[in-house]
Amino acid sequence: MEPPGEDMARIVMKFGGTSVSDAERLRSVAEKVSGVVAAGNQVAVVLSAMAGTTNQLIEWTQAMSSLHDAREYDAVVSTGEQVTVGLLAIALQEKGILARSWLGWQIPIRTDGVHGGARIEDIEGEEIIRRMGEGEVAVVAGFQGLAPDNRITTLGRSGSDTTAVALAAALKADRCDIYTDVDGVYTADPRIVTAARKLDRITYEEMLEMASQGAKVLQTRSVELAMNHRVPVQVLSSFNNTPGTLVVDEDKIVEHAVVSGITYASDEAKVTLLHVFDRPGVAAAVFGPLAEANVNVDMIVQSASPDGSSTDMTFTVARGDLPRVETMLTQHQAAIGFQEVLTDDNIVKVSVIGVGMRSHAGVAQRMFAALSEKGINIHAISTSEIKISVLIGAEYTELAVRSLHSAYGLDAT
Amino acid sequence: MEPPGEDMARIVMKFGGTSVSDAERLRSVAEKVSGVVAAGNQVAVVLSAMAGTTNQLIEWTQAMSSLHDAREYDAVVSTGEQVTVGLLAIALQEKGILARSWLGWQIPIRTDGVHGGARIEDIEGEEIIRRMGEGEVAVVAGFQGLAPDNRITTLGRSGSDTTAVALAAALKADRCDIYTDVDGVYTADPRIVTAARKLDRITYEEMLEMASQGAKVLQTRSVELAMNHRVPVQVLSSFNNTPGTLVVDEDKIVEHAVVSGITYASDEAKVTLLHVFDRPGVAAAVFGPLAEANVNVDMIVQSASPDGSSTDMTFTVARGDLPRVETMLTQHQAAIGFQEVLTDDNIVKVSVIGVGMRSHAGVAQRMFAALSEKGINIHAISTSEIKISVLIGAEYTELAVRSLHSAYGLDAT
Repeated sequence: MEPPGEDMARIVMKFGGTSVSDAERLRSVAEKVSGVVAAGNQVAVVLSAMAGTTNQLIEWTQAMSSLHDAREYDAVVSTGEQVTVGLLAIALQEKGILARSWLGWQIPIRTDGVHGGARIEDIEGEEIIRRMGEGEVAVVAGFQGLAPDNRITTLGRSGSDTTAVALAAALKADRCDIYTDVDGVYTADPRIVTAARKLDRITYEEMLEMASQGAKVLQTRSVELAMNHRVPVQVLSSFNNTPGTLVVDEDKIVEHAVVSGITYASDEAKVTLLHVFDRPGVAAAVFGPLAEANVNVDMIVQSASPDGSSTDMTFTVARGDLPRVETMLTQHQAAIGFQEVLTDDNIVKVSVIGVGMRSHAGVAQRMFAALSEKGINIHAISTSEIKISVLIGAEYTELAVRSLHSAYGLDAT
Repeated sequence: MEPPGEDMARIVMKFGGTSVSDAERLRSVAEKVSGVVAAGNQVAVVLSAMAGTTNQLIEWTQAMSSLHDAREYDAVVSTGEQVTVGLLAIALQEKGILARSWLGWQIPIRTDGVHGGARIEDIEGEEIIRRMGEGEVAVVAGFQGLAPDNRITTLGRSGSDTTAVALAAALKADRCDIYTDVDGVYTADPRIVTAARKLDRITYEEMLEMASQGAKVLQTRSVELAMNHRVPVQVLSSFNNTPGTLVVDEDKIVEHAVVSGITYASDEAKVTLLHVFDRPGVAAAVFGPLAEANVNVDMIVQSASPDGSSTDMTFTVARGDLPRVETMLTQHQAAIGFQEVLTDDNIVKVSVIGVGMRSHAGVAQRMFAALSEKGINIHAISTSEIKISVLIGAEYTELAVRSLHSAYGLDAT
């Protein structure tokens, strides 16, 4: 092995399920890793399970019991990544590269005890750093860790992104490259907006909003981690060699567009309580039981009635929670004091996101005007410092996203 | 949980791949375990991977490299058992039984560092014994352990039998029940001899000879372990509820037949060296290189030439080793000093086994007479205290096994 050069970097490369779905794809991952190693870099690789494997394993656990022990679920479901890391280590060795696989419990990647949805607490990176120094590639199982009870945990769906970023932080890596089936972060979903452009750079804050507002390219938790530890993340394609999108600190971006991207989220449902008796504490009466049941409430709108005695209250929840929410509200109808509950899952949340809007006025107005021009009715609005979201009818999704993409001057020329 | 009764036993139950091949079969394993638990016993279960899974995993490792790192092979191949133990623990919990899965590294089951074919060195059973006392069923992954380097090892094919017996010894179990797709140990392969009878009891020594002479019902290593630790083993069917065959100490069997069973092994090949120069040290010259290359030589026959100057030497090796053996002998032809090497893989080794032959004369003679009567030529003979094996042409397999079964009075009446 040649000693690593002066300009050598330490890089974590993460590949998702479609990139490791069979022997041929695993070999082409080995080829990509080999190129990065040959350029003089120290490399750790994080892998997901083969596409489809995790779903098969989950199905089996469900066939055994619909209310299964999450600790056993974790033991079963974590095997998918164990297979791919072993296979990639072999494929790398076949190319003459020093490599070994690492399971969560071997490093260890310590997590809390929340089986099925654990959070990484600590990664002991010293031994891997030492071996990287000797030219060995660490092939690390994504999505899994070790709980305080010495049993395997999993991090929840898409947890491999989180493993990659947390590992990059622990290894003090110069960059975390997330290889995926798209070639970067776009100004909008290219399947809807043909004029969407790939962004060269985006800030952590924008990426975080994009991830939580419906862009599927990175898992929200992994962006939070990257932001907290200032890990530069690159999103790029497994299937070509073009540069992707760099997720970086705001000061690394010279010129900001007002808006960086338009997202949409179709997984929410709208709940409306009609004629809620308007009194102090009514919001607590509505949202208290939902919070206790771990239901996340997103947008909330309250409209006062003409006589001030009652009000209509609208909010959104995850679509999957809707049946539970309806049951709960009906149970608490007397305590809350409302006439009727209406639900609508035929809605979409469209958001415009950009750090530039902090310093620009009229950004929201431009959104409302663009939608109004197309005759699109807004059911609810919510805003943050760098994001404006509106709730509209689902049938307007494509029209709204395309119109906003044009209105903010994002279309490729 | 009721406290275990006075007559409670501690039992290890082991199920093979065909018994856990899908959700339905896993549920019926849970049903069987539940019955043994309900009878007041403390239970540990050892499982194989789903039938077919291990072969699939091995294929993948071979697709990555024909000369793969055995440590990575072990990481990949051990996932099969990790899946089944998690699923069975869930199925048992669904039936209201306390249960948890245990992976090799969690117990731990310590092995040596021979990846791909490790030997169990120690099992820390205290925690499992404690939990069994609280009514919890331990569901233990077979076939796997933890090497001194903190990586997963596997025990070689059929290693789950070995795990079960070793666990039974560590847990001081009263019995180790090996559930399989046959309902016990037979006097001969029932597919060949329709008059074959299931044995109620058999000694460790006989079982060991049977396993090493071709009976596929138990892995040789597991019988050795059972014998060394005096673990009573029962071989019985997963698919019915009839009692199986007990493998026990000789003094637990009141009356011994002279011969307990007839076995055959089709996986050997015959090698003959013609006109070997007969001198002191010639056997070492032939077998030294084979031993160094880890080739096991089984039967050896040397026939002197009329003039005493040269000899023909015949021996058998595993059929899979034959190409290597031919190459090696040809390379050493000058050093050994022989004229020609002949090989024949169209042969079979038939054995008669029984502790009773220690105290009976004429057992071998009866074998030779029975074969001679059918016109079957014997190429080689080897004997031990409780076994006589002959090498014959493969086309005589069925005829020889049936004739010997009758000749020793084993046919069911």
